[in-house]
Amino acid sequence: MSEAGEGTSRYLARGASATKDDVHRAIAGLEKGLFPSAFCKVLPDVLGGDPDFCNLIHADGAGTKSALAYLYWKETGNTDVWKGIARDSVVMNLDDLCCAGATGPFLLSSTLGRNKHRIPGDVLSALIQGTAEYLEELERWGVVVHSGGGETADLGDLIQTVVVDSTMTARMPRSGVLSNHRIAVGDAVVGFASHGLCSYEAVPNSGIGSNGLTSARHDLLDQRYRELYPETMDPRVPKDLCYSGQLLLTEDLNTLLARELGLAPTQEREGLDFGRWFLSPTRTYAPLIQALIQDLGVSRLHGMIHCSGGGQTKVMHFVGNANIIKDNLLPVPPLFELIRRQSGTAWEEMYRVFNMGHRLEVYLPMELAETALQWGRHFGIQCDVIGRVVDGPGGLQIKGPEGWLTYPTHLA
Amino acid sequence: MSEAGEGTSRYLARGASATKDDVHRAIAGLEKGLFPSAFCKVLPDVLGGDPDFCNLIHADGAGTKSALAYLYWKETGNTDVWKGIARDSVVMNLDDLCCAGATGPFLLSSTLGRNKHRIPGDVLSALIQGTAEYLEELERWGVVVHSGGGETADLGDLIQTVVVDSTMTARMPRSGVLSNHRIAVGDAVVGFASHGLCSYEAVPNSGIGSNGLTSARHDLLDQRYRELYPETMDPRVPKDLCYSGQLLLTEDLNTLLARELGLAPTQEREGLDFGRWFLSPTRTYAPLIQALIQDLGVSRLHGMIHCSGGGQTKVMHFVGNANIIKDNLLPVPPLFELIRRQSGTAWEEMYRVFNMGHRLEVYLPMELAETALQWGRHFGIQCDVIGRVVDGPGGLQIKGPEGWLTYPTHLA
Repeated sequence: MSEAGEGTSRYLARGASATKDDVHRAIAGLEKGLFPSAFCKVLPDVLGGDPDFCNLIHADGAGTKSALAYLYWKETGNTDVWKGIARDSVVMNLDDLCCAGATGPFLLSSTLGRNKHRIPGDVLSALIQGTAEYLEELERWGVVVHSGGGETADLGDLIQTVVVDSTMTARMPRSGVLSNHRIAVGDAVVGFASHGLCSYEAVPNSGIGSNGLTSARHDLLDQRYRELYPETMDPRVPKDLCYSGQLLLTEDLNTLLARELGLAPTQEREGLDFGRWFLSPTRTYAPLIQALIQDLGVSRLHGMIHCSGGGQTKVMHFVGNANIIKDNLLPVPPLFELIRRQSGTAWEEMYRVFNMGHRLEVYLPMELAETALQWGRHFGIQCDVIGRVVDGPGGLQIKGPEGWLTYPTHLA
Repeated sequence: MSEAGEGTSRYLARGASATKDDVHRAIAGLEKGLFPSAFCKVLPDVLGGDPDFCNLIHADGAGTKSALAYLYWKETGNTDVWKGIARDSVVMNLDDLCCAGATGPFLLSSTLGRNKHRIPGDVLSALIQGTAEYLEELERWGVVVHSGGGETADLGDLIQTVVVDSTMTARMPRSGVLSNHRIAVGDAVVGFASHGLCSYEAVPNSGIGSNGLTSARHDLLDQRYRELYPETMDPRVPKDLCYSGQLLLTEDLNTLLARELGLAPTQEREGLDFGRWFLSPTRTYAPLIQALIQDLGVSRLHGMIHCSGGGQTKVMHFVGNANIIKDNLLPVPPLFELIRRQSGTAWEEMYRVFNMGHRLEVYLPMELAETALQWGRHFGIQCDVIGRVVDGPGGLQIKGPEGWLTYPTHLA
């Protein structure tokens, strides 16, 4: 990313990081695995010893979205939001692994770290039962994940509220690995919406996923939370960057969107408050990805990017010898527009921190784009050809609502 | 555990927990796996589909030992202690899995959560490189662990300093699973020391491992750290329970042990300060366990307990229909005697929180005990027949330095 961008970022001042420069430096010397351009590290078949197979093990979690759930739970007493956090933690692993071509079955382990003075047993139960319920739900969509249990640690000296992490393992044929080195000039970029209501969701998704939540929470929420819940803030961050917005978690969503963005009320959003919508569990693309792999095969899927940390610039970790043009993005979902207006964040940073409308993008030959779009529609996921790969030295151009934005490749 | 014990515990008041009662309640309804008495949950072969094989996935971490490393690093600038924390996090998984009979190869993933304002890139590098170096070292002892990488998350709103967790996966024949249901009346209990200097360690080990570190840190360390490093304390814990001891991390170890316990200086400890010794990386028993399994076979190893959280009472999660007598424990290592004296903790609680001298105990027929002891000596690990299994309704009796202590079974 650009140094100017990093230097001035509110995101960075809050101690979050969309680019993780020092993390990338710390892991620079480590071995990259069998398929260096796959979305996850691919190891030889350590667990089976078969030269035609490989293993993946992957860790991620709900991040600071748990601080948002904590606020909502404290304000309302609702423990269901913790079940959503459990889903977030699973999906952040599942979708990364799917982007590497893994279709399961998967092994899952959970790691919960809590401050016992603030997080009681019924929150743990919601997190643990929420995971179990979600795995049952995934199985109905053909995504098989087995839980091997996990660890719950009481770490009050380290953790202010709760950290919800997961780790997932997969074993698969090497021939099934989806590697982004195949991304080529001429490819279409198909984007699949992160928001709305898809065929396997029960409530409309705000699209936020589990990335950019530190910024989003502080930019949107009213400063009254600053006094009420200091345990959700880093004491090292300047107070004026904490809860610097004007919104309340318990306001009716239709009312809020009408006032802030002039949106007409919808029936889907009826009865929802802003907090529940903001906390929408991260949409999984696993059923869609499995269908795409089964229908098209991994060799025709030139690339698959989970637009998580790094948002719309994520692909730049994988492409250095062609340019990516994204000039037909899906409409910006209302939540991101709210964040932008409340915070005054520049479009350039918005696309670097948030997914801005699609959290999955697939790179494939232009003539196959329609097949991919049909699968998106099959699952009720808004989708479109949002861009293309063109000849060039490496770089990303995004056509935003107010003009072009340019980002460099992350590859040296 | 006894309600009286829990109610009065300093450990509990600090928000740590040796018994995790509410965690056990939260997971009570979950499926227990193929071998409910194995030390870790054992799943069918999700990854290979072979009915003769099984899978294990396990999560744990260095816990609040990272807060101790933080103190030492801030006081001295020494980043090597972070390499020790990386080892702790690995061993807390490795030794649990070995106790279930797994001998590798293993897959490892790391999960680091940090406050970026306090934990810079060179600490991350030490943690990540420390893991890589440790895996190389383990391989020289025949223990094969492959790293699949991991996640580093900047979670300043959740985490005061740093949380260092790991997850490990194994696949093995079902016939190789070591299940504690075999523990039987007449068995010997062989304990293997957690402290001293074994053949695969470079510096003498204090024996603390990675459990009980919240209590140990606060009970031992001088209150000056209270003012200097509030970021290592839970603000909800009463101040007088934080850093309520009198010791300094940078004092010469021989000098300190001579003054506090009247111990003669040893050459092994020369040049070591108290902090480095307190931070001794958790000893792994993996090479020893592999030798025992190879020599004796799992069916003759009736039980294997990693005395981690719950200390010497850990076995009570696995035995409900016989009594355990531990009447010949290894001598109490100096670190635990220091903790007891500085804190005034009762012996009953000391044995429930700390390993008190051995972190591995093996249950096997009395006539095989000498073989197990020979393997301990082979690796330079002090060991002895520390007890036996006798007829009874379930319960544990420990002969401590000041008399008998009695603990109930944890099984309902």
